[in-house]
This record gives sequence, structure tokens and C-alpha cells, in this order.
Amino acid sequence: MESRKQPLIITDKTQMRNWSRSARSQGKTIALVPTMGYLHQGHLSLVKEAHNHANLIVVSIYVNPGQFSPSEDLSTYPSDFHGDILKLVTIPGGVDVVFHPHNLYDYRTDNENKNYSVDCSNSCKNLEGEGVVSCVEEKGTGHETWVRVERLEKGLCGKSRPVFFRGVATIVTKLFNIVEPDFAVFGKKDYQQWRIIQRMVRDLDFSIRIIGSEVMRETDGLAMSSRNVHLSAEEREKALSINRSLLKAKSCAEKGQRNCRELRNLVIQAIDEAGGKVDYAEIVDQESLEAAEEIKSPVVFCVAAWFGKVRLIDNVEINM
Amino acid sequence: MESRKQPLIITDKTQMRNWSRSARSQGKTIALVPTMGYLHQGHLSLVKEAHNHANLIVVSIYVNPGQFSPSEDLSTYPSDFHGDILKLVTIPGGVDVVFHPHNLYDYRTDNENKNYSVDCSNSCKNLEGEGVVSCVEEKGTGHETWVRVERLEKGLCGKSRPVFFRGVATIVTKLFNIVEPDFAVFGKKDYQQWRIIQRMVRDLDFSIRIIGSEVMRETDGLAMSSRNVHLSAEEREKALSINRSLLKAKSCAEKGQRNCRELRNLVIQAIDEAGGKVDYAEIVDQESLEAAEEIKSPVVFCVAAWFGKVRLIDNVEINM
Repeated sequence: MESRKQPLIITDKTQMRNWSRSARSQGKTIALVPTMGYLHQGHLSLVKEAHNHANLIVVSIYVNPGQFSPSEDLSTYPSDFHGDILKLVTIPGGVDVVFHPHNLYDYRTDNENKNYSVDCSNSCKNLEGEGVVSCVEEKGTGHETWVRVERLEKGLCGKSRPVFFRGVATIVTKLFNIVEPDFAVFGKKDYQQWRIIQRMVRDLDFSIRIIGSEVMRETDGLAMSSRNVHLSAEEREKALSINRSLLKAKSCAEKGQRNCRELRNLVIQAIDEAGGKVDYAEIVDQESLEAAEEIKSPVVFCVAAWFGKVRLIDNVEINM
Repeated sequence: MESRKQPLIITDKTQMRNWSRSARSQGKTIALVPTMGYLHQGHLSLVKEAHNHANLIVVSIYVNPGQFSPSEDLSTYPSDFHGDILKLVTIPGGVDVVFHPHNLYDYRTDNENKNYSVDCSNSCKNLEGEGVVSCVEEKGTGHETWVRVERLEKGLCGKSRPVFFRGVATIVTKLFNIVEPDFAVFGKKDYQQWRIIQRMVRDLDFSIRIIGSEVMRETDGLAMSSRNVHLSAEEREKALSINRSLLKAKSCAEKGQRNCRELRNLVIQAIDEAGGKVDYAEIVDQESLEAAEEIKSPVVFCVAAWFGKVRLIDNVEINM
């Protein structure tokens, strides 16, 4: 039996950076796969994709409070660190490092921390009089620097989750500066996120190549997501309406239906009839994410919908 | 006669990064001194400070359109690249690289650029319906990622220059990602800028040590600035009121006057009487930059004032 590679688990950011620099000085290339843990086959496919590009693989597991608003599901976000490691070990080639920091928004030195324990993953601080607030906002000398991709962050998921993409862009910047990878792999299931990170890397001159990895699905077509575990059996069945109607819309478009209103109605109606609540169903340009009225160039059909208390997203690219 | 070191002049960002990585792989440390050119003794003192920390010195010379609003003085900002090089050569130890890019917001590939020339330093594009606009904003796939240090950027100079610090933080991030230095030196004359960059580096986990360098002054006390050349002889004389009144306020504070309103009135009145127009005169905490009512801890007295068409800034630290 093949002996499986156990990843090195690093929790300290200085140790993480030193590991990367040492590897780089030996001529190795590094790919980062950022995750919030509770890994499924979708994540594992990102790691497999990473192996196509770099010598060494770092998977980060960190539930980022900066991308949750106080009203969102930070406290119930699922986690299973031990299970995650077991899954990563099964991947051919394995992973070299799992970066699992405790709190990336606590900037006190080790000395200041001695008699102090903080866990911002369990509480959201609300600030009076502040407009856009995430779960790391606090007064005084707390974290206050945010990376914003100002146009791309506004539409789609940005409408109902105003702090989300600023939180994502910021934590990814932090991870890039700590891990200093040559490549980073993002799933195209989070299509807007993938485009935002691509744009951010270009605009801020990061020397990192962003790899987009295709959506992984269950055998019945449901896009894999850590949030799927919260679906009841009944909700899960209803949620199949998303992918099914998206595929139908894609097929209609390919047969000549180029009117986006018609295609959107098809999807909205199907999800509605299944008992889901559509947050948005938009057909947008693949790069600018601007809404299209008619399909004339490559677009992506993006959907977010609620099934019970679970919000799911999915998309299909339509290339004309 | 000692032969003087001629800096290597690099205009291409990939070449710049390759130079830094090659130097780092040989165990050298690099300090970056970001400037907008038209160098004076203040800048040269930053380079001298840089020599105290690193083996190799990179001075960037780039007038950043991203920190100017369309109504500001981008088009008249003084420049003298040849003169700048001559000055840098006189510094003991010299500088190793002058990074002098043409346009850091143009992301087309070399191929796309072949028959195209762009110079965003001569024009500001105004966008209808956008709130905060700098001279690099444009629709479509143009630059749209901004780094914001949300609390520190608001007060002092941020009040009258709403795009300024977002532009500074963003260009410094870009320069950090291109030059990849170990140290970066900023003048404490731009006190708020220095604190913002420090906070940004902490919050985004850049592995760069920020060095603050003391204000350099003409023999009569005027803080050195590239904008001083625009002052008439008469305005220049009047402008001395800034530093003189700041020193008087500091001395009063040291003698026991801790009331900030009294100290501010002293400065406002002095500048007013000299014929200047005060933009702000604030006594703030040295780190949080929050306004103080009474001096109980280390503060900095920051002033911005107009003399004719020239806006000058200056400050003194008051350590209690």
C-alpha cells in the first residue's frame, strides 16, 4: 500500500511565509488553494487542478469573519478540521501544507497576547453609525483596511451581501502576502468571486496566476457546496431546479433564443415552482459581469436562490 | 575623485520584479523610496535613511494619477527626471535602481499596445454618476480595485481630498507588489500618509517594514515640498507662519497649555494674519489620528493651508 503524504500543518503566519520563501529559494513553485474548510469533492478538485501547475500545494483553511455580515451564518458555518485533513491525504500527490491560522485580524504581538484569548469566529461586533459592517469591525486600532473591486463587487451576490466581496478580496490579499504563492486556484462555482480576484490581481500587480476550476456537481447535478449539508432531503430535491433550469436555458440559447428576459423567466419560474426563492437570476458578460439584454458574446447565467434557510448559488457559461 | 554610481533605470514592471527577485536570491535586502519626482533634499534624506536599513535602494519616480481628483493639480505637478537622476547620483552610496514606469494603470499586454499610446498623466476622465473619482477612472475593463484604510483616510487631508489616500494606498500596494522590497521609507511630513501606509501594511500582512523619516526643512523652517516652487517670494515668506506657529504651539504645550482649542486658535490666527487660508489645523492622536480635546498622550499637530494657489502641509509631534 502506498504511503500517503501527511501535510505539514502551519498556524503561524511568519512560519507560513518562511516555509514558502525557503521552498521558492530551492526553485520550487507554490500553488495556494484558499478554502473555508468543511471540504468536499469540489475543493479536492481545486487541489488536483493545482497539481497541474505547481510543485508544492498549500491549502488554507480559515473561516473568514471579514466576509460575513453580523446577520449572516458565520456562527453556524460548518467545520470539520480533522475530516478535512483525512480528505486531503487521499488526493494523489497530497498537499504539502495546510495553513490553518486562528485569527488573521488580531495584530497584537505575541507578547501582548500572552494573557489574552480572542475568537472572533463566534461573535460579530456591531458598530453604531457605520454603513457597511462585517464581523471584524471594531473601533480603535482594529482592522480597517479593505480591498474593493468597486464595479465587479456591486452586482449579483454583492447586492444582497454588501460586505462579502470586500471581505473576500481583503482576506485573499492577506493570504497572498502571507503564503506568497505563484498560482492560486478558485472554483468557477463562485463565478463572481473568481472574476473579482482575477481583476484584483491585475489591478494591484500581484505576481500570481489565477486558475479558474470548473464547477463540481453531485451525480444529480447539484453544485457542490459546504452549505448543502444544511438542506433537508426535501429541500435538496427542490434545489435541483437550479441546475436543471440553467441547463435548459443554455440549451434554449444554443437553439437560438437570445433574449435574456425570456431565458431568465424560464429559470425564475422553474425555481419558483419548485418552492425556492430566487435572490437573483442574471445573464451577464463573462468578464465585466454587466447585465446583457441579448446574448451576443460569451455570457454566464448566474443564479442565487434560497431553499429553506440555505442560500445556494450556481451558474453556467454560455459561449456564443 | 570618487566615481559616482549611476542608477539602473527600469521602466517595465516585469523587469523591475525580476531585478528584485534576482537580488533577493543573492541574499540582498531592498529598500523602496516611493516618490513622485521633482526631488529635493527631503527626498534625498529618505534615500539616506534607506541606506541605514537595506543593501540595495530602489527609488520610484511616478506621478500617480490615481491620487488626484480631476479638479486637482495633476497636469501642473512639476517634473524634472534628468535633474532627479543628477541629484540621486550625489547621495553617498547612490541608488541602485530608479523605477520610472510610464503608466501603471494600463493593463493591456505588449501586443495590444503596439499601435497605441496612452498618457493618463495629461488628462482626467470624469465619469457621470460616480461618487468618488480620480484621474484613472474609466468605464469598461479599466482599473477598479482600490485599497482603503477606512478610518484613517477620513480626517485631515482626507476631508478636502476624498480620493487622495485611496489613491496613495493603492499605488503603494502596486509598487510593493512590483518591487517586492524588504523596507519602504516614507517622510513624516506626510504624517497621515505615513500612518495609513503603516496600518495598511499591518492589516494586509505585507512583509515590509515601514520606516518613517523626519521632516526636512529649509534653513528658515519651511517644510520641503515639490510644490514650494510654485510659491511667489511673498507667498513663501507668508508660508513660514505655519512652522513658526506650530513651534510656538508646541512650546506652549510643553509649558503646560494642554487645551487643544487654545493651541489650535493660536496657529489658525497666526496663519490667518500672515495671509494664508487654513484648510485644517488639528491636534490628533499619533496613531489613531483621532482629534484630541486635551493633550494627555502623544499627539501630532497637523496643518494644511493655502498660500495663493499652493496648498502646503506641515506638522509637529508633541510627546507628553
